[in-house]
Order: sequence, then structure tokens, then C-alpha cells
Amino acid sequence: MAAEVTSATTMAGASSAAPVTGGPVFLAADEAAALAAVLDEESLIGRTLRAERQRLEAFLAEPVRVPGSGPGGGPEHEQHKLNYQMLFVAGRFWQMLGDRRHAERVRDVLLAYAARFEALPFAVPHTPNPPGRLFHQILNEHMWLLFASAAYGSIRDWLPAADRTAIEGQLFEPMVEMFTRTYAHHFDIIHNHGMWASGAVGIAGLATGRADWVDLAIHGRQGDDVSAGFLAQLSALFSPSGYYEEGPYYQRFAIQPMLLFAEALERARPELGIYRFRDHVVRRGFYGALASALPDGTLLPLNDALKRMNIDSLGYVLGASLMFRREGTDDRLLWLANRHGAVWPDAAGLMLSRAAGKAGSRPVPFSSPSVELSCGPNGEKGAIGVLRMEDGAAGQAVASLDYGTHGLAEHAHFDGLTLGYFAGGREILRDYGSVRWINMEPKRGGSYLPENISFAKQTIAHNTVTVDETTQNGGDAGRAARHFGRRVQFAGSDPDRQMMTGEISGFDPGVTLRRTALLLRHEDFEHPLLIDLLRITADRPHRYDYALYYEGQIVRMAPSFSRAPTLEPLGQGPGYRHLWKLGEGALPEGRALLGWMQSGEYVSLAFAASAPATLMLTRLGANDPDFNLRPEAGMVFRAEAQDMIFASVVERHGAFDEASELSVDARGQVTGLEILHTGEAVTVLRLPGHGHSWHVALVHNENVDGPHEVTFAGRTLRWEGPCLMQRES
Amino acid sequence: MAAEVTSATTMAGASSAAPVTGGPVFLAADEAAALAAVLDEESLIGRTLRAERQRLEAFLAEPVRVPGSGPGGGPEHEQHKLNYQMLFVAGRFWQMLGDRRHAERVRDVLLAYAARFEALPFAVPHTPNPPGRLFHQILNEHMWLLFASAAYGSIRDWLPAADRTAIEGQLFEPMVEMFTRTYAHHFDIIHNHGMWASGAVGIAGLATGRADWVDLAIHGRQGDDVSAGFLAQLSALFSPSGYYEEGPYYQRFAIQPMLLFAEALERARPELGIYRFRDHVVRRGFYGALASALPDGTLLPLNDALKRMNIDSLGYVLGASLMFRREGTDDRLLWLANRHGAVWPDAAGLMLSRAAGKAGSRPVPFSSPSVELSCGPNGEKGAIGVLRMEDGAAGQAVASLDYGTHGLAEHAHFDGLTLGYFAGGREILRDYGSVRWINMEPKRGGSYLPENISFAKQTIAHNTVTVDETTQNGGDAGRAARHFGRRVQFAGSDPDRQMMTGEISGFDPGVTLRRTALLLRHEDFEHPLLIDLLRITADRPHRYDYALYYEGQIVRMAPSFSRAPTLEPLGQGPGYRHLWKLGEGALPEGRALLGWMQSGEYVSLAFAASAPATLMLTRLGANDPDFNLRPEAGMVFRAEAQDMIFASVVERHGAFDEASELSVDARGQVTGLEILHTGEAVTVLRLPGHGHSWHVALVHNENVDGPHEVTFAGRTLRWEGPCLMQRES
Repeated sequence: MAAEVTSATTMAGASSAAPVTGGPVFLAADEAAALAAVLDEESLIGRTLRAERQRLEAFLAEPVRVPGSGPGGGPEHEQHKLNYQMLFVAGRFWQMLGDRRHAERVRDVLLAYAARFEALPFAVPHTPNPPGRLFHQILNEHMWLLFASAAYGSIRDWLPAADRTAIEGQLFEPMVEMFTRTYAHHFDIIHNHGMWASGAVGIAGLATGRADWVDLAIHGRQGDDVSAGFLAQLSALFSPSGYYEEGPYYQRFAIQPMLLFAEALERARPELGIYRFRDHVVRRGFYGALASALPDGTLLPLNDALKRMNIDSLGYVLGASLMFRREGTDDRLLWLANRHGAVWPDAAGLMLSRAAGKAGSRPVPFSSPSVELSCGPNGEKGAIGVLRMEDGAAGQAVASLDYGTHGLAEHAHFDGLTLGYFAGGREILRDYGSVRWINMEPKRGGSYLPENISFAKQTIAHNTVTVDETTQNGGDAGRAARHFGRRVQFAGSDPDRQMMTGEISGFDPGVTLRRTALLLRHEDFEHPLLIDLLRITADRPHRYDYALYYEGQIVRMAPSFSRAPTLEPLGQGPGYRHLWKLGEGALPEGRALLGWMQSGEYVSLAFAASAPATLMLTRLGANDPDFNLRPEAGMVFRAEAQDMIFASVVERHGAFDEASELSVDARGQVTGLEILHTGEAVTVLRLPGHGHSWHVALVHNENVDGPHEVTFAGRTLRWEGPCLMQRES
Repeated sequence: MAAEVTSATTMAGASSAAPVTGGPVFLAADEAAALAAVLDEESLIGRTLRAERQRLEAFLAEPVRVPGSGPGGGPEHEQHKLNYQMLFVAGRFWQMLGDRRHAERVRDVLLAYAARFEALPFAVPHTPNPPGRLFHQILNEHMWLLFASAAYGSIRDWLPAADRTAIEGQLFEPMVEMFTRTYAHHFDIIHNHGMWASGAVGIAGLATGRADWVDLAIHGRQGDDVSAGFLAQLSALFSPSGYYEEGPYYQRFAIQPMLLFAEALERARPELGIYRFRDHVVRRGFYGALASALPDGTLLPLNDALKRMNIDSLGYVLGASLMFRREGTDDRLLWLANRHGAVWPDAAGLMLSRAAGKAGSRPVPFSSPSVELSCGPNGEKGAIGVLRMEDGAAGQAVASLDYGTHGLAEHAHFDGLTLGYFAGGREILRDYGSVRWINMEPKRGGSYLPENISFAKQTIAHNTVTVDETTQNGGDAGRAARHFGRRVQFAGSDPDRQMMTGEISGFDPGVTLRRTALLLRHEDFEHPLLIDLLRITADRPHRYDYALYYEGQIVRMAPSFSRAPTLEPLGQGPGYRHLWKLGEGALPEGRALLGWMQSGEYVSLAFAASAPATLMLTRLGANDPDFNLRPEAGMVFRAEAQDMIFASVVERHGAFDEASELSVDARGQVTGLEILHTGEAVTVLRLPGHGHSWHVALVHNENVDGPHEVTFAGRTLRWEGPCLMQRES
């Protein structure tokens, strides 16, 4: 991996010689004065600082509170979290205004922690992660140290020596000891926890003047820049595209310590050129996190994810400011800052705020183009394809296809080739995300719940194909780490015809799945169409379950569907036991049409298979003793065959508004789907309509450019590019 | 009933003599000129007229289209609806601007209808209501005639005699013939359809100069002002409180023809004094419709209701303008007009718009106080109690209790003593409303669906007690019409302690239910508490099912609850067969605690019964072959006893926000509920908490004022007023 190190190749030798004196980590005296000068300004930075001051004053009005430990979301947890957030703000305000009350509160709180810390027992753990003394998992203690030690740095020069000794000796030193020795195995991991651990130890080192901690944080315990440490995290966790190995939800979290420690190092050790490290991996990591956002700002729900998490979270506020200052003034960051209504309150934020003020109401929206997010440190392990197509007033239609890596074991889902579809501000084909009620104390302290493993990680929980009612790679993370998807082609630049094809092979022994997803705009249709084509080849017959999750009220269904008089789980396979089977319909010709209404819009899905199939509808919630699962709706198309084709077209149409008693176009135009022709390179679908129909011809191998020609049933179609959509009379 | 007639006592004799000349119904020449003058004004009236003009121009750009009939929500239905709406606007614009295009379009469309109408077959009916020739139910044809004939009135003077003859003779006359003779039974009904029929025939009479139609519309076919006709509708359908016999959802609809025909009569026959009729019943009907609105403007979901229907619908726009002009300038109507962003485009709307413009941004919000909406023409048949308590930034907490009438058979639910609870902008204790997807053509043309009868009307579908798994009054509307609730007491004026008690007796033979609902504000609690006390007395033992419907994710439950491995319907009784039974928990001491999270807020419900009970959780959707039902969640507390007490306290607390990973106070303060004492007049409940508890003493008979004193377990509590809430150490 050392070969990939660019600007920091010289770092390992040089860094331990750099002077670390202790003191302010993020704010020099002139910068503090500049911030103080804009405190009353009508600007993003002024508003940000005033909001902080208001929270700070409320905190000062309360007594110093240093409790023991408690579960996530409980009062102790929340108090420790509040303490570190407010210490960080108080330290900054002391630097800005020189108001003794702020420095005294930082001192008093830290001394109170110092007086208690070593005597506190380890907390009761709620996760497989080791517990801290303040929090139920060491991760939160890392966060605590990062912010609290930075606050300490802000007041260190002002503190009497005795207080320094107490705080450093009785609080920070035993804490770092715990992080790096007691839990050495949790420091030496390539993981977002490892990123936080590095940032915390490194910033504590910079604040207290402990160069040894800083070096440990940068290079890891082995000093090899591979097994652990900040450089190793940056090298292993991000792909060239900026995709983060644990997925967008954890990327949003990991970029916080990444950005904070990078900025701290840029200030304390500018000779390292940390922002230039590995071809600007910090920048790539930040922009990669933005590239996986949906039009409403929520993040693509890959692997463990909270579905509402979005680009308003702290890492994006931090990143907008720091990237604007350190990596060039990108106008799209002005849009992001305006969306946040805030900036990061330091010199970078001041710079961004001034630029946003000048830009006025004309910032460039951050509308991402279609993008393929390569996976693996060198982009060698497949990718996440993301197609984005403009859809007029309805915003952007986005399709995502995962033909990348499994991800780190702890948070990865067995969801190879899962398809996502987001349009009109709605998630149309849905991913469950993780089974977790974050910080909800009665729900196991907000930790991951058992159903996260028994349902959410399993293949049947995703919009992909489950083979023989089992999970990909046998549900074995080790095996999954050795398999990754293959990019067949990605054609995302045409405004009207976008297409991507990925393949997974051996995720189920002897089975290869190739999936092609298209977004197509055609003058006959109000919105883009999504077309999904799954081609399965296998060395023997299997049962294939093609699952799609949706939301909304069913409006119509063909063929006839018989509802179960009593509900049983869909099966006993992994994940299956959590799905109630609502009933089924036989599809002797392999065709179905299902329409539903999702919050004001109609959606119709026409389905075709190359063999007879069965449609089953499901609702989540079986075998869920503690009601941990949301009762979401899904459909499963089942077929038994060796080689197999599944195809779907998803049409959005019309509108429904109950309050105005308005319903428009509840049926749409596509009345079914037929597979007219399929060959090695090309498949032709027919979409029958009212009085006419459409042909869609698509290339599902690598050679998308063409020219292409296909002859079937005496007809010949010719086109260039990945696909053709053509109306037939 | 004649004795109740006030200003209109002289009407029956006098009215037939009044001249009816035909012509404009709603707009005189000077009024039309005044509207034309404000067309470009930046005001509510200007914006309203410009929005109309824009729709009208789009309509003029299309060819004249007069199709046959089709299902609700289908293209034919929508075209006929668009036609009458646009004709009405075109007629007004012709009067305002004298632009021949407008008059010509009214003429051309009406002539096209005249040419086809008599040859059209009757439509395919989708409801028990008779079909028209244009629409699947005659109701929509009434609406068509009302607006289209008014449009005709606007251009009548301009039309050549031959066109008048064609339109009146081939369209309006056969239509009125159909309404009043072919479907005489549907004209002679006291019902919103009867109101529309009266309005349509009356306005057609005024527009065409047919005094006989006007008289028929006012007095009914019998001329008795009792069996039918506008006066009879006004007399029978509204109570003194302005409550409408069919409930708020149909009130919103019925006030449209009420207001339009009243205004038309006030203009054509001012001597009738229609607005003064029956002590201003038109005004009372309009304000009664507002009084049943929830803080967000949606309507109290009693009987058949679409849950999203709100005070933005047409009748409220009409009413705000007409009442402001005709019944005195109420400043709250300025708030309503600003909410609508529109007024009714006539002289009244112009007046309201001018007043709203002067008031600027300081209109008086329409926040209703607590109100008891008496039922029955003379207020003699119980009431709907509505308690409203201010809740700071969270708005108003509202509890509703139905101890009134059954309502007209077609749309009434067997839901005596049903309880509603709305707070923090959410419906906490929920009513299903009706089973209907309005105008959604694939759902039986948007008509009521079979599950409306088999589920929504049944007692188990509501937040009340079902006795022996059957429906109140045996599900017999005739029997239900003879039973109504009794108001025991209503104390809604205190800002911190509000309470209402209603009783139903004989709805189930030999069983009396008395229910008391309280809203209580106490300094220890963030939000008001809802307390619900149900006292049941019977002449023999029964099975009692106390049902409550909620929405959200279950967070905790006590005691232990066993989930069913396979799901079966809750029972075979009416309504029961649509509810999946998710599992059950035994409550040997008659106590339970259930907590859930509803869109960002926690709700906890503590329950106590006077006997052992069972808690069952349900989800709607069993025996629903066409997926007509929403899969809503409920709980049923079941006990077998003769006399019985059920009590609940509902506490809202804390907050949950997934995107910011915030969870606060997921448990609240109340940890349970105990019935400490119960007597003829007073019940004392204990709400245990963490380290302390609260006593709530409440009076459940008529004598709420006090002073009261109750002694139990050696303690004596003393208080004045309906209830006491007191913290115990």
C-alpha cells in the first residue's frame, strides 16, 4: 500500500521531529479575533456563532454535571455528549472573547471529569464494541476526547500548572492508555472507529503537546501506515472515486474525524501536506460522500443505514468550509452552506460565509451528475452505479445498482446487485436500511437490534434475487469479502437514455446474475421509465426469488391474487421468517401488472419472466417479538429454473390528492411487459399500451456504443448507443 | 317543524308570487364591472380572478368535448366536471369583460350537451344512488346543473331565442324532469343529495326564469317545507349548534349548495330573508363546519370521512366571503381568506379581499375554543364534545367525544362514545374514516368500497367499547336512529382542567356506557395529559373490547406480550374479520403500559381495568381481497365482566429525530395507572411515576362544580370544579 502514498511518502520519517507544543488546535489568535468581529453580523458565520453562544449560555446557566455511564439515548449518555459539545464551543468562545466564564467552565468540567474518571467502572456494553468509562461503547469516548481535548487546548495557556497536571494526568492520559493499550485491538482496526480513535488521540496529542500521541495517531501502533493509524485509514477505506468501504451512512460519520484531524495536522504540521496525501483523498472522501446523496439530500441507503440521514449532518458542514478554504473555492459549496444555514465556525467557515454572502441568492445547486463510484482502494473491486436523470418539476430520477464490494463485515449487507430507485422526491424501490432506533434508549440503548442480522443484512431484505431461499455467500462475511461485483458497462451521460450493467458471480455457487438498469425518457411519457433486466445463468436449476420493496396503497393487480386467510412467514430461510406472506397469484405466462399509489403519485410495475412464476406479496413483521421492524411492504416474484430472465418496467404517472378529491391517470400507459427477444448482447422488450406499444432494445454486454442491429420475428431494429426506445403503432 | 321557522314563516305563501325573469344569478352589472376593475390588483380577489382566467384560457384552447358517462375519476367524469367548472367561470368573465369568446364557449358547450343529452343512456351506477346520463350518480349531475345553469344565466340575454329554446328545452328541462320526477324519491330526501338537488333546480329556475322550479326547490314536491325542499333541508339537517346530521365531512360538502342557493335567493327574492331563516341557520351551518375543524384545518373524522379533507375546500371559500358580507364582518374570516389565498369571486369576495388587504398581516387566527356541538334539529339528541387546550409551541390538544346521534343511515358509523385525540399536529387516537379512495377510478370509480360497511362502520373500528363482539344497535340503522347519546356534563372553559362526560344506553341491550374524557395540564408535564374513564354497567355479564387505534412504532410494552407465530383474524364478528391479531398479553391485574413513537414524538399509554384483562394488538388488512384497507395499527383491551371500568392515561413526551440521531425522554413520567377508588360520583386514579406519583380525582356525574370531597384508604381529597390533579411525594 505504501506505493500509493503520494505527497506523504516522506511523512513517516519526518513527522516525529516536528515540534508539538500544546495549545489551541483549530484557532490562532488572529483567527479568533476575526471571528469575534463578525459575531453580530447578518451572515452565515454570524448566525452560526450566535446560535452557539445561545446554547453555551444555557449550558453555563446549569451546574457542572459529570454523571457515570448509561445506555445510548439515556440521560447520562446525553449529558456526556452535551458536555463535550459545549466544552468545544466554550473553548472557542474563550479564544474569541476572553470572557473568563468560558475558560472557567472548561476548566471546571474537565477537573470534574479528572476527579472521577479513573474511579469510574467500565460501562455496561450494549454492542460488541468495548465499553468506555463514560459511554457504553468506546467509540463515543473517542468522540468525547477529540472535542474535549481540543477545548482543553484552547484554555491550556491560561490554566495553572496544577490544573494541567490533573487534567492531563488523571483524564487524558488514562483515556489514551485505554484507547491504545487496553483496547489496542480496537485502535488497530481499519474502520470508522479506527478513524475516530486516530483523530481523538492525535488531537489530544496536539492539544497537550504529546508528540508521541500525534505520531501514534498518524502512523498506528506498528508505525507501518498499513495496520492502523490515520494514513492507513485514509488509504484503505476510500476508493479512487471517494467511495467509502462501509457505505454512505458511515462515510457521513467517518468524514468528521477525517476532516478534523486533517485540518489539525495541516495547521500543526503543514510540512506533511495531509490534504495532498494520496491524491487528495480527504477531498475525494468528502466529495464521494456528497456524490452518494439523493436529490433531497438523504444518503443512498447501502448497508447499515438510517434512512433519514442526510447531508445536513456535521461532516458536511465541516467539509463545506474546510474544502472551500483548503481545496479551492467550489461554488457548489455555497449552495451547501446556504442549505445548512451555517458554516463551520473557524477561519474556513468565515471565508465560506463571506463568499456565500457575495453570491447572494445565486449559488450553484449541488446537483450531482450520474456517477459510478468505484470500490476498493484502487478501484479494482466493482462499483456502485448511480444514474441520475432530470425529470422537470419532479426533480431528478435516480437509480442505483450495487456491483461493488461487500463492505466491512460489521455493517455490510449481503445485497449484491441490489437496485434502488428514487424519483419525484420518493424512494420508489426501497431498501430497509438497518434495524435500529438510534439513541432510543428503551430499544437496547439505540444499538443495532437482533433483526438487523436476522433480517436487514440478508439477501431477501433487498431488491435483488435470492437463490434457493438462502443468503449470498452463505451469509459468511469472510467469504463475501473475497467476492465483489464486476462492472459490465456504465453509460450515464445521455440526458434521455442512461444505462448500467453489473454482474456478480459465485455469490451463490454456480450462479451468475447480470443486471441492467435503464432510465429512459420518451416523449410519450410524463416521467422517465425505469427498466430492470436480470439475466441469470446457472450450472443447475434453482429457485429464484426476485424481490422488490415498495410503499403505498395497492390500486390494481393482474392476474388475480388470492389473499391468505391466515398469515404465515414467507419461509424459514434467512430473513424469510420475518416476512408475512399476504397471498399469492400464479403467473403461468410469467407476466404481472401491479399498481400502487405512493403519497400522491401512482406507480405501475409491469413484470415479465422467461418462465412461469408466482407473485407473492409480503409485509414485514413476523417473528419480531419486540416490534423492532417497520411493517414495510414488498413483492417477490418466484420462479424455478436453471437460466432465467426477470424484467420489469416501472412507470410513474398521474396524481392523487385526497383533500381536493383529485385523481388523475390512475392507470398510466404501460399495460404489460413482454420479452420479445433475448440474445448474448441484446434483449428486446415490448411494452404494450392502449392502442399502441413501445419497443425497448438494450445492450447488456460491454459493447454499448454500437451501431447495433437485432432481428426478431421478421423485424429488424437498428440503433446506436446503449438502448433504443421506439413507439410502434 | 313549522313552529321553528322564524323569518321565513311568511315565505311559503309569498314566494310563488315573486317575479323570476331569468338571467344572471350571482352577479349584477355593477358588480361585474367592479370585479373587472380589480383583475390586475395585487389582492386576494385579483389573484383569485387571475387564477381563474388562466384556467379558463387553457379551457378555451381545447376543443369542446362532451363525452358520454364513465366511472368516478375516469376521463369522462373529469371532463364533465371540468366543463361545468369552466362554464361557470366563463359566464362570469363574459359578464365582467364582455369578451365574446367566453359567451360563445358557454353557448357552444351547452348546445353540445343539448344535442346529446336526451339520447344518452343512463350511466352504469357504482353506488346505490341512481345514475345520471352524464355521471355514474345523480348527485354529480345535480352539481353539473347548478353551475352550468348559472353560467347559462350569465349569457342568457345575449343568446338568440333558438339557442335558448334548445338549451332549456333539450337540456335543462329533461334534466330537471329527471331530478324531480324520474328520481322523485331522490329529490324528496333530507340529505346532502337533497340539498344539492334543491340548489340545482332552484338555480336553474332562477337562471331560466322558471318560477315553478324555484318554488319546488324551496318548498319541496309536497310544498310542505318538511318532506323536502331547501327549507326542510335547512330545518332538519342542522342542530342549533350548527352541527350537521351527516357529520363534518358531508357538512363541508352540503354547505356548498346551501350557501350558493341562499345567496341566489337573497339576490332574487330578498323579501324571503333567507339568511335570517331559522335564527340564521345558514350562518350556524357554516360556523358549525368551522367549529369541527382540528388545529391543522382537517375536519373531525366522524362517520364516513376522508381524513385529509379540510377547511380549504370550496364551501369554506364560499362561506368566508358570503358570511363576511351577509352576516357581519368577523375578523376571523380574514384569517381564513388569507389561509385560502383566495376569496369567492363575487361582490362578497371583493369586500372580504379589501378588508383582508387593510388588515395586512394582523388577522385574527381562527382558533376555536372548546365547544359542545349539540345534535338534533332542536339540540335534543346529545352532542359531540370537543375539548381544546393550548399546548405552547405544539399548538392545541383536542379531544372529541361522540355522545350524539347516529346520523343519516348512508354515511353513519355505529360508533357511539368514540373518542378522538389530536395533539402536536398529529392524530394520536385515530379514527379510520371511510373505506374509499375518492375518484380513484380503478377502485370502483372512487366509490365507497365493500369494506366501508364490513369494517369502517362497525363498532370495533372505533375508539370505543364493543360488547360481545357485535356492533352497536345490531348494526341496524333504523334502530340506531332511535338511540342517541346523553350529555352528562361538559366543562370546557378552564385553561388547565377540561372534562366532558357522555353516556349511551341501550345501544347494546341492557348495557350503559358512560365515558369521561379529560385534558389536564400540570406543571410536572411538558404537554397536557389525556385521561379516559369508561364505566360500564350491565344487567348481565358480557365480553367488553375497549379498542384504541394509534400510529407509530412500538417502543416498549408491559407486561410481556407473545406474538402470534401465524396471524388469524381477531374474530368473526362484524369488523373483527378485517383485523389481524398480532398477539396478546395477559393482564392479570388489569394493568398495562404501551409506548410508541409517532413521527418524532413519543406517546405512552397506561391502562387500568377493574378486572383482569387481555391486551391484543391488531393490524388492519385481513379478508381484504382488493387491498382496499390501509394497514393501520390498533390495540384492544378485552375483559369479561358485568360492570366494568376501563381507564387510560395518554402522555406525550420527548422527541425523536433520526437524521440528527436525537432521542429525548423516550419513557416519559407516568409508569402505570391504578384505579384507587370509584363511587357513584367520583373516581380517583393514581399515576405512579419515578420517585413520586400523581392523584387524579374526577367527577363523572352531572355535579361537576363542587366543592367535592372523597375519602379512600384513610386519605381525603377536597377540590372544586370537575377534577383535581395533585402530585404526591
